[in-house]
Amino acid sequence: MTIAVHAEHEVGLEKNAANYVSLSPLSMLRRTATVYPQRPAVIHGEVRRTYSQMYQRCLQLASGLEKLGVKTGDTVSIMAPNIPEFIEASFGVPLCGAVLNSLNIRLDADHLAFILNHCQAKVLLTDTEFAPVIREALNKVSHSILVIDIADSQGPGGDCLGIMDYEALLDTADDNYAFRLPEDEWQSIALNYTSGTTGNPKGVVYSHRGAYINALGNCFTWAMPHFPVYLWTLPMFHCNGWCFPWGVTAMAGTHVCMRRVEGHQILQAIKQHGVTHLCGAPIVMSFMIAAQREGGYEFDRPVKMMTAGAAPPAAVISQIEQMGIEITHVYGLTEVYGPSIVCAWHPEWDELPDNERAHRKARQGVPYELQEDLMVADPDTMQPVPKDGKTIGEIMIRGNAVMKGYLHNPKTTAESFAGGWFHSGDLAVMHPDGYAEIKDRSKDIIISGGENISSIEVEDVLYSHECVQAAAVVAKPDEKWGETPCAFIELKPGSQTSEQALIDFCKDNLAKFKCPRHVVFTELPKTSTGKIQKYVLREQASQISA
Amino acid sequence: MTIAVHAEHEVGLEKNAANYVSLSPLSMLRRTATVYPQRPAVIHGEVRRTYSQMYQRCLQLASGLEKLGVKTGDTVSIMAPNIPEFIEASFGVPLCGAVLNSLNIRLDADHLAFILNHCQAKVLLTDTEFAPVIREALNKVSHSILVIDIADSQGPGGDCLGIMDYEALLDTADDNYAFRLPEDEWQSIALNYTSGTTGNPKGVVYSHRGAYINALGNCFTWAMPHFPVYLWTLPMFHCNGWCFPWGVTAMAGTHVCMRRVEGHQILQAIKQHGVTHLCGAPIVMSFMIAAQREGGYEFDRPVKMMTAGAAPPAAVISQIEQMGIEITHVYGLTEVYGPSIVCAWHPEWDELPDNERAHRKARQGVPYELQEDLMVADPDTMQPVPKDGKTIGEIMIRGNAVMKGYLHNPKTTAESFAGGWFHSGDLAVMHPDGYAEIKDRSKDIIISGGENISSIEVEDVLYSHECVQAAAVVAKPDEKWGETPCAFIELKPGSQTSEQALIDFCKDNLAKFKCPRHVVFTELPKTSTGKIQKYVLREQASQISA
Repeated sequence: MTIAVHAEHEVGLEKNAANYVSLSPLSMLRRTATVYPQRPAVIHGEVRRTYSQMYQRCLQLASGLEKLGVKTGDTVSIMAPNIPEFIEASFGVPLCGAVLNSLNIRLDADHLAFILNHCQAKVLLTDTEFAPVIREALNKVSHSILVIDIADSQGPGGDCLGIMDYEALLDTADDNYAFRLPEDEWQSIALNYTSGTTGNPKGVVYSHRGAYINALGNCFTWAMPHFPVYLWTLPMFHCNGWCFPWGVTAMAGTHVCMRRVEGHQILQAIKQHGVTHLCGAPIVMSFMIAAQREGGYEFDRPVKMMTAGAAPPAAVISQIEQMGIEITHVYGLTEVYGPSIVCAWHPEWDELPDNERAHRKARQGVPYELQEDLMVADPDTMQPVPKDGKTIGEIMIRGNAVMKGYLHNPKTTAESFAGGWFHSGDLAVMHPDGYAEIKDRSKDIIISGGENISSIEVEDVLYSHECVQAAAVVAKPDEKWGETPCAFIELKPGSQTSEQALIDFCKDNLAKFKCPRHVVFTELPKTSTGKIQKYVLREQASQISA
Repeated sequence: MTIAVHAEHEVGLEKNAANYVSLSPLSMLRRTATVYPQRPAVIHGEVRRTYSQMYQRCLQLASGLEKLGVKTGDTVSIMAPNIPEFIEASFGVPLCGAVLNSLNIRLDADHLAFILNHCQAKVLLTDTEFAPVIREALNKVSHSILVIDIADSQGPGGDCLGIMDYEALLDTADDNYAFRLPEDEWQSIALNYTSGTTGNPKGVVYSHRGAYINALGNCFTWAMPHFPVYLWTLPMFHCNGWCFPWGVTAMAGTHVCMRRVEGHQILQAIKQHGVTHLCGAPIVMSFMIAAQREGGYEFDRPVKMMTAGAAPPAAVISQIEQMGIEITHVYGLTEVYGPSIVCAWHPEWDELPDNERAHRKARQGVPYELQEDLMVADPDTMQPVPKDGKTIGEIMIRGNAVMKGYLHNPKTTAESFAGGWFHSGDLAVMHPDGYAEIKDRSKDIIISGGENISSIEVEDVLYSHECVQAAAVVAKPDEKWGETPCAFIELKPGSQTSEQALIDFCKDNLAKFKCPRHVVFTELPKTSTGKIQKYVLREQASQISA
């Protein structure tokens, strides 16, 4: 690979075993287990394990998988909530050279079967809670999969489907199984299927190098100190838990597990375990705000929360920060290892009025220290839009925290990397200070009478209404205008308002053409990661008579 | 490079411009200048520059060098103290593809000429303070070098030797010089000659990848927050300032420059600029302790100091920490990008008695989060020594923060990498908790009557004496015993003691055979980095009559 410039100077300066080692998150576990063997690695109900213990179990898992016949490059799937076994799989599966495929626990049997077929899963680790849907999925899979059951003591129980349970698999391990890194840092470490779009899910492939870089990138972005106490509110199946199973381990932190994400449980866990860091979609913040209103929790240390998945409404940011929780707004996609863009804060912004601060914070921002580059550009010409905060273009990202590509899908991969940038599909403007702000997913833009309406802009206004817990605005087909905005609203408990009142409220705060023509009060359909499923709402909106 | 396992799965998953970017410290500057253009990058006397300005000047330097004919792989040398131009060179030189060769400003003309010849320097940036020695050195160089003078406003002035001055070089730049990364992250970024041993200096070559990794490694080790204020007490010519020109920039910190390292100036700068971080050899701590005794400075925020170069004596650690300065003890060598081993602290050690804490802290420790591995081993068998805190072996290091090798010296390179580890030449024990502790450089061990005496152990005792400012113990040839320990002592200002009193003090605290037979009161000869030049003392000791 070395460029042949001054080749005579390069003699004797080649890569060798002493000066070149594959970048891999696996090193993080070995280092922490070696330096801090007795520090708490994981808390789960009554379970407590040190780093020494966790490392041992990861080695056992790797050894056990090898004994099942798993080889370098094979896929091992996992279907589980945020339990210690998932963290162990994040290390143990790649330790034996295999690729970890995390399944979204909200998927139905057809989707699961599609994925298990597509990635040719060799082994499936599955929490017994999901036995029914997994049984159904396995019936639709065309090859044989070795199933290992995880019987979590904190779980509701359920049938065992497999050849043995997880603990029995660990028991098969060789005592002296040796830690090893991949020979090539470009080797695949994980495979995550995107969800939520029409058509079949696409399998996003991560490398050891990229996972290492973005795990560090998260630590940098938070300037995370050593020994964080990290609460697992973000699903680990989502972009490998945004790479935090690895990053928290690098900082010798404690993983506090949680099977279910619920407002009171979150706040209790923060208090009980001295949680310092957590992640979650804005909807998780809404849960926390609601629980705080009822519970009046007080925390004795600062808490930092990273949020992404949707631009957090200004009102939500203000309320959560009043609870003493400092929000870092990040942005990403499965294709960039979870978040790798951040609304990097400027200390002088602290002095701005609350509302202005929240608006600054709602912007998606700039690349992580460890992501290389972001631009907002016209996808046809690849020319960046002017930094005027107005002209809409597509967010493009390049750097070491960008996926290898889509599995078995070179055509879509090539399209998504056209021109040497990853095309995110998110539409944004670039502000004069170089911060990107998303205006919408391509498909979430509402085009009414030829004018583009950002559904986020309308939602932001709705969120600022005192009765609104959550809001989603989608396009409703309209004979005259093409599309009109239709709002779906979840009210705060005990609140009451009317369709007309909300429409009037919008008219006070928005250009008239942007205001919803219809308002539906309902519970919003959400993905397991807290993203509102707009395609469901679009379907509903299309059936409302005009 | 991809391993041919499941090759069919890798189709379409190759590296490309969107997902693979050379790891390079250059990215750190561009990112910070883009995100935080108005933040203060550098303070030097009256000079203040923002990151936008500094970035601009780095691009100008790169462009100016290109116009002088500098090409990828060429060497650009610099002879300067800790001034802004040195930071600019840390980025500007590699920006144009060249390799930065930093010269130790304490070297004599012969050594300088040797280095300039050996690395075939094409351009030399030189501070006018050093015109006399540089003029002499250039007369001994056999090829022609383009000399650029740096006329620092804070400097003492001096002759200009070159074709133009540094500012004039910047003025030659193209306005639209484009930022670019090296095509290959293994490309060389820097060349640092080791000093202090007999024989000719060896040229240690760094890669962009390694520099990036260790710059991040330092930030991790300190868990450095954003916007540090970093005081340049450590020479930038020493292992590229331990990679801090790059790391501090990554965290959008402020570089506070300093031409001369002096106790009062250090403490005044900490107070005036709100310094949060600094580095230096233990001797720098001694300067600070002495100045504090006279000045009684008070700091309004926590200060963190990284120290290496010699195991800090327990007494020095205690005193400096009483000043409110938190010490991180690190260890490294030029060959591992400066420090990449750290005495990683365990919070529970805070509870230990002062003396015990200091002893823990004096150990060299464990690899950085971003360095891969350390072992203490028998260099012949490459077998690790037992973790008994007693058996001596050689410190061996491997990882991405290990040099490419020695320039034009494949034989010594191969020897230093024998068995796939870098052989440090430092002798150490491994404690049961996996922390290495240096007992001596191979050549610093005193062998008396067949018994090994660690000069560090004796020095540690001497440092704990109330009158001792600095101590160095070396071997004195002895007809009967082979060697005996000879102590060289710098007393604290105003202190008085006698040779016999110090020998008695040692006898109270050490096995008799370890006690110095001779004590010399003198100013200790030091390298520019504050390391005591033991070879000078050895020479002196050999001339003392027995």
